[in-house]
Amino acid sequence: MEKKLIEKAKKEGRKALTEAEAKQVLRRYGIPVVEESVAADPEEAVRQAHQYGFPVVLKGLGTRLTHKTERGLVRLNLRNKRDVLAAAKAIARSAGEDLEGYLIQPMIRGRREFVAGLFCDPQFGPIVMFGLGGIFTEALGDVVFRLTPLDEAEAGRMIDEIRSSKLLDAFRGDSPARREDIVRTLVGLSRLAEEVADITEVDINPLVIGADGRVTAVDALIIIGDRPAGKTAHHPVDPRELEKIFYPRSIALIGASPQIGKWGNMLFSNVLAGGYRGEVYPVNPKGGEIAGRKVYRNVMEIPGEVDLGVVTIPAAHVPALIPEFKAKGIRHMLLITSGFGELGGEGRQAETDLVKAAAEAGVTILGPNTMGICNPHAKFFCIGTSCWPQPGPVGLVSQSGNMGIQLLDFAEAEGIGIRAFCGSGNEAMITIEDYLRTFEVDDITKTVVLYVESTKDGRRFYSTARQVSRKKPVVVLKGGRTAAGSRAAASHTGAMASNIRIFNAACRQAGVVLADQPMDLLDLSAAFSSLPLPRGKRVAIMTLGGGWGVVATDVCVEMGLEVPHLTPDVIARIDGILPPYWSRENPVDLVGEFEPSLPGKILEALIAWDECDAVIHLGVVGRTRMVLKSLDAARASGQAIEQVFYDEGRKLYDGAEEEFFAFSARMMEKYGKPVLGVFLDDEKSKTVREVEGSPYKGIAFLTPERAVKTLARMVDYEEWLRKENARSVDGA
Amino acid sequence: MEKKLIEKAKKEGRKALTEAEAKQVLRRYGIPVVEESVAADPEEAVRQAHQYGFPVVLKGLGTRLTHKTERGLVRLNLRNKRDVLAAAKAIARSAGEDLEGYLIQPMIRGRREFVAGLFCDPQFGPIVMFGLGGIFTEALGDVVFRLTPLDEAEAGRMIDEIRSSKLLDAFRGDSPARREDIVRTLVGLSRLAEEVADITEVDINPLVIGADGRVTAVDALIIIGDRPAGKTAHHPVDPRELEKIFYPRSIALIGASPQIGKWGNMLFSNVLAGGYRGEVYPVNPKGGEIAGRKVYRNVMEIPGEVDLGVVTIPAAHVPALIPEFKAKGIRHMLLITSGFGELGGEGRQAETDLVKAAAEAGVTILGPNTMGICNPHAKFFCIGTSCWPQPGPVGLVSQSGNMGIQLLDFAEAEGIGIRAFCGSGNEAMITIEDYLRTFEVDDITKTVVLYVESTKDGRRFYSTARQVSRKKPVVVLKGGRTAAGSRAAASHTGAMASNIRIFNAACRQAGVVLADQPMDLLDLSAAFSSLPLPRGKRVAIMTLGGGWGVVATDVCVEMGLEVPHLTPDVIARIDGILPPYWSRENPVDLVGEFEPSLPGKILEALIAWDECDAVIHLGVVGRTRMVLKSLDAARASGQAIEQVFYDEGRKLYDGAEEEFFAFSARMMEKYGKPVLGVFLDDEKSKTVREVEGSPYKGIAFLTPERAVKTLARMVDYEEWLRKENARSVDGA
Repeated sequence: MEKKLIEKAKKEGRKALTEAEAKQVLRRYGIPVVEESVAADPEEAVRQAHQYGFPVVLKGLGTRLTHKTERGLVRLNLRNKRDVLAAAKAIARSAGEDLEGYLIQPMIRGRREFVAGLFCDPQFGPIVMFGLGGIFTEALGDVVFRLTPLDEAEAGRMIDEIRSSKLLDAFRGDSPARREDIVRTLVGLSRLAEEVADITEVDINPLVIGADGRVTAVDALIIIGDRPAGKTAHHPVDPRELEKIFYPRSIALIGASPQIGKWGNMLFSNVLAGGYRGEVYPVNPKGGEIAGRKVYRNVMEIPGEVDLGVVTIPAAHVPALIPEFKAKGIRHMLLITSGFGELGGEGRQAETDLVKAAAEAGVTILGPNTMGICNPHAKFFCIGTSCWPQPGPVGLVSQSGNMGIQLLDFAEAEGIGIRAFCGSGNEAMITIEDYLRTFEVDDITKTVVLYVESTKDGRRFYSTARQVSRKKPVVVLKGGRTAAGSRAAASHTGAMASNIRIFNAACRQAGVVLADQPMDLLDLSAAFSSLPLPRGKRVAIMTLGGGWGVVATDVCVEMGLEVPHLTPDVIARIDGILPPYWSRENPVDLVGEFEPSLPGKILEALIAWDECDAVIHLGVVGRTRMVLKSLDAARASGQAIEQVFYDEGRKLYDGAEEEFFAFSARMMEKYGKPVLGVFLDDEKSKTVREVEGSPYKGIAFLTPERAVKTLARMVDYEEWLRKENARSVDGA
Repeated sequence: MEKKLIEKAKKEGRKALTEAEAKQVLRRYGIPVVEESVAADPEEAVRQAHQYGFPVVLKGLGTRLTHKTERGLVRLNLRNKRDVLAAAKAIARSAGEDLEGYLIQPMIRGRREFVAGLFCDPQFGPIVMFGLGGIFTEALGDVVFRLTPLDEAEAGRMIDEIRSSKLLDAFRGDSPARREDIVRTLVGLSRLAEEVADITEVDINPLVIGADGRVTAVDALIIIGDRPAGKTAHHPVDPRELEKIFYPRSIALIGASPQIGKWGNMLFSNVLAGGYRGEVYPVNPKGGEIAGRKVYRNVMEIPGEVDLGVVTIPAAHVPALIPEFKAKGIRHMLLITSGFGELGGEGRQAETDLVKAAAEAGVTILGPNTMGICNPHAKFFCIGTSCWPQPGPVGLVSQSGNMGIQLLDFAEAEGIGIRAFCGSGNEAMITIEDYLRTFEVDDITKTVVLYVESTKDGRRFYSTARQVSRKKPVVVLKGGRTAAGSRAAASHTGAMASNIRIFNAACRQAGVVLADQPMDLLDLSAAFSSLPLPRGKRVAIMTLGGGWGVVATDVCVEMGLEVPHLTPDVIARIDGILPPYWSRENPVDLVGEFEPSLPGKILEALIAWDECDAVIHLGVVGRTRMVLKSLDAARASGQAIEQVFYDEGRKLYDGAEEEFFAFSARMMEKYGKPVLGVFLDDEKSKTVREVEGSPYKGIAFLTPERAVKTLARMVDYEEWLRKENARSVDGA
């Protein structure tokens, strides 16, 4: 039926269905559309009004009638026959020859107006919107988005997510909104998007909630046409094949140079300095030697097999390498060289041509315009920065080179182990989704971290990220969040759908953990790779002092976590540990007790507590320096402090710290709850502390807000994961 | 007139004025109240309706009639005589014996409903509210507050501050709201609060904006009664007198102890280790010696004069010290001891008694329950942590000891100079406002930083902070933001006024710079004390690479700053500095150029640019380590790198960094614009770099978001300062 209506409209050169047609379509998709009927003349309208019961609404009908409200073609709240006749007269006068009849509806009353809609994003495809409607849609922007298809649970989450969701509860004498009707509307829009490809936008505004809670679509607009096609061609890459690039048995450096500062030298230095054990073949037409190694004039001269060709020669000379790679049997090219697609125009064409030739020759290209890759597990550091992060579980991909440099440098300094890193460059052939899939199937990777500026195919990014998120957390920082995202759109829904809103919606739906800033990426990698997931949002806090606990509690609550009151059982337990004047409150204040075994005891009492899902400790780690400084002060004041005091102090607290981390790890294993720490001072210690023999690690941050923010994101991910798993079990 | 109405209502035992009375009062204060009149019976109501013109509104009138809407006593949109009579009948039925007459009004139509109100906060006194009204007030919470008195400019800022202020512009065919009427309403409420003390709450909900932009108060509620009196007695302290406490010529340590770890030992150690040059007299009834110094049995035994008595003995023994202090002529007591007001009950009484006795004896008490004070300018470190921050311009007060410890420790590590620090403890006598005034008149102090959990007199805090903010920035972190802040209130206004909302409103109005977390306090201290204020929000960014610039731009825009496009003049200038392929965009990418003199040249081009108010540079500082690491890598790869390369590298970049900071300072002097940096890596360098001979300093943060956030707060403060000065000039 809807297809016929659309064909008819298209034949008539229209870009939208009439209001009556639109409602007919929506009704078929289970959306609670207001009852209505068409009347040919005023008298028929009056007859129908009597059937609905007064008051009624009368509208002018006609395929050429748009902007009805502004043109006075919508007459509300008509209470009797006289009102209807007068309204019909006014409408006829205003519409003139365009009038084809009247639409008559019962008057739907409701103080609560919402909006629902559909929009097709060039990157992410069909998107369903829900939010506060009426005059508030644009003014307040309280709307949420979801990619189709949408199940009922997801629709329910949309409803909960808007700021004004309180309006849907019982409200000033009005009944709660019939939630199932809203869910039906959103799921219906999703089905419509999936089944009718010619529909590009839908607006239901307002979706009125009556005093009795009934939900009614009072007005509807359906825009028809061709959906935008924003996707680019994709060369499928086998994740297992890509994995091999990170474990080359031998590499050729095409463009190797003895000149310090040049890329061709820097990569050579870094690969060797990093301890790479495979063969390294420098290649340069000039020949000669670099650091005592023979330089080959071209790849054909190389005696052995080559797994990976690393290319730093100018862009113009790169195409000629493809047949050489083919001849030599080099199947992978790491293309550092810039001057391709990022220049636009000719550069873009050169990139397309290169990719085509490479695909035909069976050569996979990583890049171009990349800062390189590294795999600390193989001591393979083929990157444009002298940085040697330790091997570990974090898979890292960056679309920006200098962001990659900084992240690796911070990771090294904070003790965050890297599984592999890749600067993905222009992603001419291997895209961010390919890396995602590679890290998905790699058993060493526990957490995937991405810095993303753009995606080539939003839908593909979404579905890949969702698939990976089911197995391990995917943490994303989006660069260019605030870039102008305006677009042409005929509907409210379209106008509200900025690029970053859609990107964020896709990420949330896919379970992706969104970071606000670069430092978050590191904190989240450390935590996700080192700790069990919290199973709820209740936090127990242990602190060395009051103000700090207060601040940590503030941040917890502001981030949506809970800091529950202590219950009698846990109070009784801590009564046996702390002196009688302790506060009996969460945060638990160690009341200045510096006895090294104390924090462990309190930690166990808290983590064992049924109403706690995670423990944050403040100031327990990093006390060594404080104690030693105080001994220094005593000595400087003329008191006789023997060296043994320093040594004992250091041993006591350093040992106690290690012991505390080991104990935390055991507690995490025993109770399956995460423990996060905050340093007492800025001793600049490493964030992550390995604990031998444990799947978990100790972690401590420089400030309470970083610990809390990290935990809050873990809670979100766990919640998503639980729902996603339930969904899979339901077969949805 | 209003006083008579209130007296009448009180006499009748009412807690509110009738709607008609309330509107009468509001009209006298210039608030655009809907026309209305009282009718004794339905017939009179019909006559009046004819005068106003239909449609009209009819309401039941009676001193005992409340919750009118819910009881069906409000009938809207009556279009003719028949409607009015039917409505009057229905109202009479529903009101029963409580009906005293009818209120009749023209029907005011408007899709845009706002709310305005008045509330008396126990801490901060009368508060005016403005926000989104109708059914959205509680559901969306889009309201702002201001302390009275309120001038027109401040009222205008309230209007701009709500999220839904767009609704006041021309909107979907409706005219812009008459802003002057809203201003008049808010200023009128403020005057009412100032002039009529018996009014405790006012609600104007809705304040309707008509399609023609007219503003009308359609409904009004005035609650009467006694205003809450939350203030506690205050002992005035002369700021110059308080200043002396930070420069004692001699101190007595009452409770001095040889036992390491005790407060009586720690303070002794820290004072001497800090290099204090005045006399230190240990006092302890046991006598003997500590570290070779004679211990006096009581203060009377001390041979010389004592400026400050530092007390660590148990609370029970403290009162006995007052007569001794008086006899010995010790005028100031730093009371470290806890066990007073913070315990409540008897402790509170003991504190009150102690303060009374001290006041009578002419002794000023700082504390009790404090971690101490320090003044690095006098090498006086009488604090419970072994920490020696350098002398500088930041005055720091903390209501929490461990927050103070952490802040001092971070300040020391980051090179942030401290003017003086005080743990203010229970503030029994000297309150946070006294410290504010002391730092106000102190010429060395450039920035005042406070950690506040509660105020004893909110109004006093507000007026003092506002006074100080006119001279120097006051930076505040509020602890306990999320503590339950519910309270009994009869109005919407009261219900919306949580403690933290009022505190934040007071701070914003007073020009206080609000910090979100402890680290912000340090960043803001560093920046405010080291840089000129920006005169606008346009930021030029210089970066070593793309992704970083993207992220910094995102954070700028999210924090309300602007990153303008480069204009031809500045492009032409940079064309002469960077290679031809530079991006010609802001952020300016140094395109990997490592030449040491380059950043200075770009910096000058940007800071001289008319459309830039501040410069942020990313990655220029901290390159030394990168260069040296890359030399290391080259050597490790077997290349012959001579030591002179390292030495040159270090000299080149270390020297270049110092030179760059010095140059930045000269640029800041020349152009009066701030320059903020971000390190390339986490070399853990100091945030603040002194520049000899300049009033300004170099600063660099660990991450872009910290630099941007800091700059955004500086912009806010400068804007406040400009308006505040304009206000003073106007004599407002």
